[in-house]
Amino acid sequence: MSDKIYRVNMSDLSYKIENVPEEWKGLGGRGLTSTIVAAEVDPECHPLGPNNKLVFAPGLLSGTQASNSGRNSVGAKSPLTGGIKESNVGGTSAGIMAKLGVKALIIEGIPEDDDTFYHIHVTKEHVTIEPCPELVGKNNYEVLDTMLERYNKKVAVMTIGRPGEMKMLISNISVKDPQGKFRSHGRGGLGAVMGSKKIKVITVDAEKYKETHIVDPEKFKEANKIFTKALKENPISGEGLPAFGTNVLVNIINEAGGLPTRNFRSGNFEFAENISGETMAENIKERGGKTTHGCHAGCVIQCSQVYDDKDGNYLTSGFEYEMIWAFGANLGIKDLDMIAKIDALMDDMGVDAIETGITLALAVDADLIEYGDGERAYEILKYEVNKGTPLGRIVGSGTGNLGKLYGLVRVPVVKNQGIPAYEPRAIKGQGVTYATTPMGADHTSGYAVATNILNSGGYIDPLKKDGQLELSRNLQIATAAVDSTGMCIFVAFPALDDPKCLPALIDMINARFGINLTADDVTSLGERIIKIERDFNKKAGLTGSSDRLPEFMKYEPLPPHNTVWDFTDEELDSVWAYLDEKYN
Amino acid sequence: MSDKIYRVNMSDLSYKIENVPEEWKGLGGRGLTSTIVAAEVDPECHPLGPNNKLVFAPGLLSGTQASNSGRNSVGAKSPLTGGIKESNVGGTSAGIMAKLGVKALIIEGIPEDDDTFYHIHVTKEHVTIEPCPELVGKNNYEVLDTMLERYNKKVAVMTIGRPGEMKMLISNISVKDPQGKFRSHGRGGLGAVMGSKKIKVITVDAEKYKETHIVDPEKFKEANKIFTKALKENPISGEGLPAFGTNVLVNIINEAGGLPTRNFRSGNFEFAENISGETMAENIKERGGKTTHGCHAGCVIQCSQVYDDKDGNYLTSGFEYEMIWAFGANLGIKDLDMIAKIDALMDDMGVDAIETGITLALAVDADLIEYGDGERAYEILKYEVNKGTPLGRIVGSGTGNLGKLYGLVRVPVVKNQGIPAYEPRAIKGQGVTYATTPMGADHTSGYAVATNILNSGGYIDPLKKDGQLELSRNLQIATAAVDSTGMCIFVAFPALDDPKCLPALIDMINARFGINLTADDVTSLGERIIKIERDFNKKAGLTGSSDRLPEFMKYEPLPPHNTVWDFTDEELDSVWAYLDEKYN
Repeated sequence: MSDKIYRVNMSDLSYKIENVPEEWKGLGGRGLTSTIVAAEVDPECHPLGPNNKLVFAPGLLSGTQASNSGRNSVGAKSPLTGGIKESNVGGTSAGIMAKLGVKALIIEGIPEDDDTFYHIHVTKEHVTIEPCPELVGKNNYEVLDTMLERYNKKVAVMTIGRPGEMKMLISNISVKDPQGKFRSHGRGGLGAVMGSKKIKVITVDAEKYKETHIVDPEKFKEANKIFTKALKENPISGEGLPAFGTNVLVNIINEAGGLPTRNFRSGNFEFAENISGETMAENIKERGGKTTHGCHAGCVIQCSQVYDDKDGNYLTSGFEYEMIWAFGANLGIKDLDMIAKIDALMDDMGVDAIETGITLALAVDADLIEYGDGERAYEILKYEVNKGTPLGRIVGSGTGNLGKLYGLVRVPVVKNQGIPAYEPRAIKGQGVTYATTPMGADHTSGYAVATNILNSGGYIDPLKKDGQLELSRNLQIATAAVDSTGMCIFVAFPALDDPKCLPALIDMINARFGINLTADDVTSLGERIIKIERDFNKKAGLTGSSDRLPEFMKYEPLPPHNTVWDFTDEELDSVWAYLDEKYN
Repeated sequence: MSDKIYRVNMSDLSYKIENVPEEWKGLGGRGLTSTIVAAEVDPECHPLGPNNKLVFAPGLLSGTQASNSGRNSVGAKSPLTGGIKESNVGGTSAGIMAKLGVKALIIEGIPEDDDTFYHIHVTKEHVTIEPCPELVGKNNYEVLDTMLERYNKKVAVMTIGRPGEMKMLISNISVKDPQGKFRSHGRGGLGAVMGSKKIKVITVDAEKYKETHIVDPEKFKEANKIFTKALKENPISGEGLPAFGTNVLVNIINEAGGLPTRNFRSGNFEFAENISGETMAENIKERGGKTTHGCHAGCVIQCSQVYDDKDGNYLTSGFEYEMIWAFGANLGIKDLDMIAKIDALMDDMGVDAIETGITLALAVDADLIEYGDGERAYEILKYEVNKGTPLGRIVGSGTGNLGKLYGLVRVPVVKNQGIPAYEPRAIKGQGVTYATTPMGADHTSGYAVATNILNSGGYIDPLKKDGQLELSRNLQIATAAVDSTGMCIFVAFPALDDPKCLPALIDMINARFGINLTADDVTSLGERIIKIERDFNKKAGLTGSSDRLPEFMKYEPLPPHNTVWDFTDEELDSVWAYLDEKYN
């Protein structure tokens, strides 16, 4: 049984099942979504118009027993950045699509009738596209409940909430996780693209299909054993992340003076302890909940958790560092329970926690909210964004657009996408990634924090420029490749430090497909993906001047180190200059 | 007495009077503002940050007796388009600055203290920069009254209203005209740049200076006579415009099927007659008011008018085609008096009538207003925009940003600036100008309507592509040069058809400065200006893909001709490709 391309055309509500073109066969995840978007989408098209496409593709190892291989990629031209976008997610969709043999699901066109939303249901070689008036105006959990009743507990669900229906740029695509909660294709406003195509929810049912075919099962099993051991023995992926979740980073990054605080006015948050991973773990121990929790089947890191309120009632899960930072340090809320309440609301609404938090922190400069006012943040989300009032539309449009509406200058975005939880002036390698990744400010696309702060892959002084360009470049290349495998980003830690880890990963890919990739091939794959993405962006109008951090970081020193962002345009442009020569 | 550069630094509230550098001596108006902005402003800077500059420069012939030479240019990096901007205006400021010997007024920096607005007063070799708390929160007429009381009736006044204080992107810089009403540097959000520099009003007093020095007064006088005759004998500048104002165009453009109606859904407005220049002239004849009125001293065209209500009370003046189209055909208001009432309000608030009208017409697609609801439009402006409510901020951010907030696809902008009153699908030469001018969609930067519709400079079929690229290119080059002279755009009509007109204009420049420009020099000046502007834009991140009309015009045929926008990217890119070679 060979994988197929599932192609849905919303303009005439038809679908086709196609064979996988030869040149796409070795690709998965980000490598495949970016290749398809670049091949089929006019870079100058309106991202919410009929000529954009939304492409889902599980990773190369998704659907197998490989540890941490459950990431699904979605790609499109982003309405937030104006460039190409890939956003990957845990949850159950990658495994289920892979088991069903869906190499990619490509959604194109827009229905004539603007008043109807549709539900797409995918089964083996069959797709139904039906109006779903009963789901319109509902948020994620209500949609999920309806789908679980209609099908079975293991159906994959990819849905948008009300903000996605309204094509807001903070809207995400939310994906059911193994516990019936949500993970999200968070960034780049891809929920708006799904909304523009009038798709409320996509379900994929692979109940009868348990196995993904592996060419050399023995070799695969052996390699997975080595790979899993590397994950478990690494101090970050094996200890720090399981114990405190991603939120272990609050204290670490605050200590380094790189925790963006009150809209990037300082690298220290005086209430960091209140919102730290340690405090969270303590609360969970006292109240119940779970300190470890995997976002997808086969995860051995278990960096997620279930967080209950003081009375032991479920509050939220997937309570991550980025979200806690955005509403904690950056918006100044010091009450972790309040932040958790907001997190749960955003899970239900289907909005990108990072973009939303950064936008609300900027909204302080527009006199729309005050620092630390969690109740007001909650109300804005629930009664303004969720209802699409003018204020809701403003917040729903993301950081860059709010900045434009209020004439603000201190607007922390790259390519119009909000800068996440690591201060570029204090963690410069990460700043290079924000500036130069084709994705817009994105912490996952080249996690230089690893080597700047966590001593993973060596150490490069975060406050100095030396070595950062190379560090970021190499990490971005490796990440582009890893994003194609279906692997979680955190495999980077053992991959950087354990010489057995990356070969084992490559062995798994080789065993799965019966091929002979080498480490060089992986580097080359990463480079090619970035080249494809950059070429798309260039045609879409993003040039060198899009590869810049906000100007205020150049002239405003950041406490406590009082450093500024001091990379020149030429230095930033040098990161990818060689790619044009190498692959032309 | 030689001209000087007046340079005001708002960061430390200081000023300098400088000699004019040799390379700026032959420049004025747009040629000078664009040269200064390109030389002194980092193209990647935030347009509302400390590193943008606001540059005022009267035309080469401003302050002389030359007919129609009273245009003043202002330049900056535009917060609306992200590129370089020049916007020129009638009124009294050009003549007064020229008489005082102000070659250019350059305003740089931003005050430390964000709470104080300033009044800049310019006299001969002296500038005062004083806080003006008494003016904060006032709109244009109140500011004007205060200035006229404080100085004299002939002081030049350049001011921003409340939207400019709030740095809204629809805000303009309003300039006192000879009758104590306002003209405006309308487009590109330059009022927001003035607001960002915390300047509420600029006054220039040249009361004691009556004469601009002319090297060869006899030759000048003779040339001006020929030039004036050409203006008066041309059927458009000598008859059509004086009789019906610019609004003579409503019937003409509607007849041609190129009057953008209800957010560019048709080229015909069924109530065109109600809002036409003929109806306006009839109303004025019945009610009183003035059918002819000049926006600046020395105007022999007198295309403006004073428009009264049914009881003979003053309603508005400078009641132009573009504004009447924007609120009439495009927003669907068929009551000319209602449109006039909105016009007067916008004059007082200091907002770009074109951008505001296009934005409100788009707001229908966002369910914020209905077509034809003039009362609601008035209320949104007066109670939302003027007060900076969330809805007001949305409308105040212009067409492109409103489109982003509401996920709209049919958004008529180029470089984020709203497309004015000529449908590109039905008047294709004008579409080429919108796409390829460095200014963003701007009807004045290469008025192909002249040859597509008005049979001026020959005739090129508006519905066909043939000849349009060359037409637009040549008009854009000529316009860039004319915009440097201080001349009104309407000298283009006689210049296109009367062989004596352009030589007379060149003779005046030669007589004024004692130089020997030829027609080739003028073409070369125009080309160099556009080259400078395009180079700035390129460094600012605007590339070929910014030189495009909105995608929907490519696939949505426009009634009544059912034509689409069918120029290829390559064709559009070909317009300026030769410039890079010629001037590198």
